[in-house]
Amino acid sequence: MAQPITDYSRLCIHTMTTKPWSLKEAADAYAKAGVAGITVWRQHLEPFGAKEAGTIMRDSGLKVVSLCRGGFFPATSSAAREEAKTDNRRAIDEAAEIGAPLVVLVCGAVPGIPLPVARQQIIDGIASVLPHAKAAGVKLSIEPLHPMFADNRSAVNTLEQANNMVVALGSEWAGVTVDVYHLWWDAHLEAEIGRAGKNILSFHVCDWRTPTRDLLNDRGMMGEGCINIPQIRGWVERAGFNGFIEVEIFSNEFWAQDQQQLLHRIQRAYRSHV
Amino acid sequence: MAQPITDYSRLCIHTMTTKPWSLKEAADAYAKAGVAGITVWRQHLEPFGAKEAGTIMRDSGLKVVSLCRGGFFPATSSAAREEAKTDNRRAIDEAAEIGAPLVVLVCGAVPGIPLPVARQQIIDGIASVLPHAKAAGVKLSIEPLHPMFADNRSAVNTLEQANNMVVALGSEWAGVTVDVYHLWWDAHLEAEIGRAGKNILSFHVCDWRTPTRDLLNDRGMMGEGCINIPQIRGWVERAGFNGFIEVEIFSNEFWAQDQQQLLHRIQRAYRSHV
Repeated sequence: MAQPITDYSRLCIHTMTTKPWSLKEAADAYAKAGVAGITVWRQHLEPFGAKEAGTIMRDSGLKVVSLCRGGFFPATSSAAREEAKTDNRRAIDEAAEIGAPLVVLVCGAVPGIPLPVARQQIIDGIASVLPHAKAAGVKLSIEPLHPMFADNRSAVNTLEQANNMVVALGSEWAGVTVDVYHLWWDAHLEAEIGRAGKNILSFHVCDWRTPTRDLLNDRGMMGEGCINIPQIRGWVERAGFNGFIEVEIFSNEFWAQDQQQLLHRIQRAYRSHV
Repeated sequence: MAQPITDYSRLCIHTMTTKPWSLKEAADAYAKAGVAGITVWRQHLEPFGAKEAGTIMRDSGLKVVSLCRGGFFPATSSAAREEAKTDNRRAIDEAAEIGAPLVVLVCGAVPGIPLPVARQQIIDGIASVLPHAKAAGVKLSIEPLHPMFADNRSAVNTLEQANNMVVALGSEWAGVTVDVYHLWWDAHLEAEIGRAGKNILSFHVCDWRTPTRDLLNDRGMMGEGCINIPQIRGWVERAGFNGFIEVEIFSNEFWAQDQQQLLHRIQRAYRSHV
């Protein structure tokens, strides 16, 4: 188990967690509440543009932790795969503009494409944009997604696969994201976190509700589900990770609530269940 | 890829696939349609009792392939774990009574119990009832469930884990069930099917819809999803399995339809997409 959390110096919140808020509203509220970091989703960045978004966040005093998300490399046509690479280069440019050291990759999957083919297309796609990432000083982080997303969101479904990809890519500009929601069930998780070591670029938390009413948007608040978050945090910290702890919750239920109260609830849960 | 399917001599249907039908209705309809086998769920058996259910199926000429389901071993109290063992012995007795050579185990999970603890409780539970199974001439088959069921249905989520349990149990009365729905995403599946070899006791098919609208009851008809069923069938057959191919589909959509038409659709899909 990790050491108890006593302050908000490592707390980062994803703008998708408070989806109804604009980037400006989120940045103001997080900063006022003493949250230290923010991870920006591209849909929240878009209305302002990267330049103004960067100014908003610098003015708020928040540390920009990462940009979500790049990826979605597999496609049935080579033209579409090239377009995906172009879009990832654009995401890298946006990350550089807002001062995010990292683009998180939801790698992609397509129902008609066999998973081994999709995985190779992912490696090829990341390899193609890595020089651009390096030139921009932005790292790319492979986030394995839960196997229930293997049909159309990611063909990378375990940390083992993400680690294997980082080995195949052989670049210090590529690493992995550990999200407890996607990986908690895996009996190899502790070992693969140890293997990832310094390649762990970010750490996402939320919880797994029982019952889970929706595959995509029914994640739980830390502490209301079955994931032993302190245990997994202990593993990533033992592996050498001491960066931000990012609260990323997609929840139709939470998005329908008052976002300011949700923010306070996140802070309480962060102190008690992370 | 496996050889094409040309008849229904290996087709088995789970009574849960045509859930609105009673066991009698299902047995009559399957037999009339030329389906060769039936797997009985306990909720369909219960209204008749095992003795009468056995008579119904013998009279229909169907081969009884398995009884679903035993399992659910983990529990927070030892009294509840003993009750689970008692219930599994009862399931074994029912299987013997209806002439089913096999009880399929959905092994169980409980949100408050850490997965490694649950897995040990599963091994202990199966070991406890194995002598009863052997005496009854009924095998126990560990069915790994998709990781999205790791919270409250099964702590066994990969074929690797099921294979490891069979090794730990060390009995020819314990084996594994390969269900394409639960396992299709796993990069180790082909290797673990090869490792399972003669321990493969049953093979379940359906498909993974995109989008999947419900975690539990939105399985797809073979051919309407992203699972390469012929490829996985080829793997299990190469491993030595030549038993029934069991259609197990939980679907609120299909259950709301005319079950006779659903049966015909299953048979068409079975010929074309299995």
